[in-house]
Amino acid sequence: MFGILLETVRKKAPLIHNITNYVTVNDCANILLACGASPIMADDMEEAEEITSICGGLNINIGTLNGNTIPSMFAAGKKANALNHPVVLDPVGVGASKLRTQTAHRLVDEVKFAVIRGNISEIKALASGTGTTRGVDADISDAVTDETLAGVVEFAREFAKKTGAVITVTGAIDIVADKSRAYCIRNGHPMMSRITGTGCQLSALIAAYVTASPERPLESAAAAVCAMGLCGELAYARMSSLDGNSSYRNYIIDAVCNLTGDALERGAKYEMR
Amino acid sequence: MFGILLETVRKKAPLIHNITNYVTVNDCANILLACGASPIMADDMEEAEEITSICGGLNINIGTLNGNTIPSMFAAGKKANALNHPVVLDPVGVGASKLRTQTAHRLVDEVKFAVIRGNISEIKALASGTGTTRGVDADISDAVTDETLAGVVEFAREFAKKTGAVITVTGAIDIVADKSRAYCIRNGHPMMSRITGTGCQLSALIAAYVTASPERPLESAAAAVCAMGLCGELAYARMSSLDGNSSYRNYIIDAVCNLTGDALERGAKYEMR
Amino acid sequence: MFGILLETVRKKAPLIHNITNYVTVNDCANILLACGASPIMADDMEEAEEITSICGGLNINIGTLNGNTIPSMFAAGKKANALNHPVVLDPVGVGASKLRTQTAHRLVDEVKFAVIRGNISEIKALASGTGTTRGVDADISDAVTDETLAGVVEFAREFAKKTGAVITVTGAIDIVADKSRAYCIRNGHPMMSRITGTGCQLSALIAAYVTASPERPLESAAAAVCAMGLCGELAYARMSSLDGNSSYRNYIIDAVCNLTGDALERGAKYEMR
Repeated sequence: MFGILLETVRKKAPLIHNITNYVTVNDCANILLACGASPIMADDMEEAEEITSICGGLNINIGTLNGNTIPSMFAAGKKANALNHPVVLDPVGVGASKLRTQTAHRLVDEVKFAVIRGNISEIKALASGTGTTRGVDADISDAVTDETLAGVVEFAREFAKKTGAVITVTGAIDIVADKSRAYCIRNGHPMMSRITGTGCQLSALIAAYVTASPERPLESAAAAVCAMGLCGELAYARMSSLDGNSSYRNYIIDAVCNLTGDALERGAKYEMR
Repeated sequence: MFGILLETVRKKAPLIHNITNYVTVNDCANILLACGASPIMADDMEEAEEITSICGGLNINIGTLNGNTIPSMFAAGKKANALNHPVVLDPVGVGASKLRTQTAHRLVDEVKFAVIRGNISEIKALASGTGTTRGVDADISDAVTDETLAGVVEFAREFAKKTGAVITVTGAIDIVADKSRAYCIRNGHPMMSRITGTGCQLSALIAAYVTASPERPLESAAAAVCAMGLCGELAYARMSSLDGNSSYRNYIIDAVCNLTGDALERGAKYEMR
Repeated sequence: MFGILLETVRKKAPLIHNITNYVTVNDCANILLACGASPIMADDMEEAEEITSICGGLNINIGTLNGNTIPSMFAAGKKANALNHPVVLDPVGVGASKLRTQTAHRLVDEVKFAVIRGNISEIKALASGTGTTRGVDADISDAVTDETLAGVVEFAREFAKKTGAVITVTGAIDIVADKSRAYCIRNGHPMMSRITGTGCQLSALIAAYVTASPERPLESAAAAVCAMGLCGELAYARMSSLDGNSSYRNYIIDAVCNLTGDALERGAKYEMR
């Protein structure tokens, strides 16, 4: 199943409109190309709706949001909704400032998202106003462990029910949930958190998968999460003693570029809850 | 000839002002340093003309144009014209939105460009309003092949005549034309299209070459196109089975860093039309 | 001593707020993660003070300053001062335009900086309005050599006395001075100037070190300068004949990721003046 979803991205080569931060934007573009999709970045209000219209999906990331780009996020999001294009939200750092929190809440209120992806602190801040974000990283007290997993799955399902979006909580264990089912995914490597923007890259990858297979948002998001985690494992296995986080970043994108449907099927590690 | 042009860049180390997109800007800066030039990025209206004045050439790329940077493009472009500095235009995604199309058309009307570089769909959209851009990629129906080559060369020459710019159309076969002569270049590798911003990087490289040798804009642009394509070949030859588009990006810039005039002379593959 | 300062960064994992340019921002984020710190980038006036408040230190870099981000630099800088957070200034290209020169001068007047880092031309332009910047590079006539070293040390000490900041002048020989003492550091490799943003990265690294050990700003800045230079040496030693500036960029960040306190102690090359 996941293998077919990967191959569908390569076959359809979906064009993804990204309104995203300037920190990790190059990596997001390269990972979209790596997986077989095609990126376009455009954040000016004058063209946001029009660019969304020629694309198949939209990826909104609030990482370096500002007064010029926020209106474009809303305009593009609503346009994508009207056109029935999948929209992904990455609420980077929600909870870290009023601007991020209010913008993210308003986005969830006014735009229908196919998938929302964040770390546990971000998703908590988005869902309830609680959760303590530590800048753009998850707070340790929020960490998803085997002990807390059942509760987090329940929380993700509830938030999925409320928003209609597939909720993707990434961390040591990743959870991808709609209102009734949840994938608990154990791919990935801790070293991934030493690279800026692996979360942003994953959100872009999810946008590619869900745009290629919009009828299966839960499975598409789960496949993308497994693909990213598996590539994190493959890339880590490739590291020499001199390599660090910068080479690791390249190796992960390289692995996404080379990943086959068969390898994804074999390497995906998840259980359903 | 191309070898001397390359060495002239290394000798003169031209300072290039870039008003460019935030997606590929780091790669543009590094490729300028790789070839022996020096980059400065500055896009605020308050300093655009002044920064252009201290530089030798200007590279305008509309990849993530916005209401703040568009006026700077015009101001810097006109200032560069007044100072007789070469100006390069990369009309990224022209045809994909009214904002891009109108801005690019106005730029061509109001600024004199030494070189305009784009894929065939972009150059068609710029020249005539026809051509179907697929986001920032060329439309397949526009592809330059041996069958369509003669027609595209004629089209490029006509557009060169109309604008006074060297027209550079990049794709499987690259065409670099002024009103009377055209280089048809067969360097490069298809994998280059899997990296974000190889086009943007090439436009920056062209700006370096044409600024170092402003009396030879046609040959300078052609030398830069051959250099980029040759480096794409050299970088591809270096790839291991685990490497993908991210390492390939690094290897291309590395190859530009190491390229000698002799290697460029030997490796350039082109015919004149 | 330097080893302990490095390990303190890894132990405390300081959160650093960066208002920086879009050219080298990704490398700044990755080098912060490499050294054990955590980056957040936020430059909108609506959230600048709030983000600074949740961080431990602030890094202001004027590389692509503009009308939207300049007010955020002042607001965040003053907030950080009020909270007693260390603030680092990287006056990229000061002297190259009135906007940069005036902004940098005003920043030094209105914000108290723990450390100011630039090349000799930038620091001269900041201190006195003289010094000839060549875009973002130091002018050759300003170069710090063994012949001019004593004078530059004296100049740095004077400027440190005037501003209360540790003055860090980087080049072939690096000088890190407060009003009474100066480190003259001979780590590094000339090839580092072929990468965009090694200066920006160093400023981010200094912000991490000085935020982790705010009671020792002189030693923290010197330790960060030695660490960056040593990593430039280690990364250069790793280069193959095919590698160029792009791989070198990755290797330097990798080396920062792997650097131990012991290796820094052994590899630091400096004398006190």
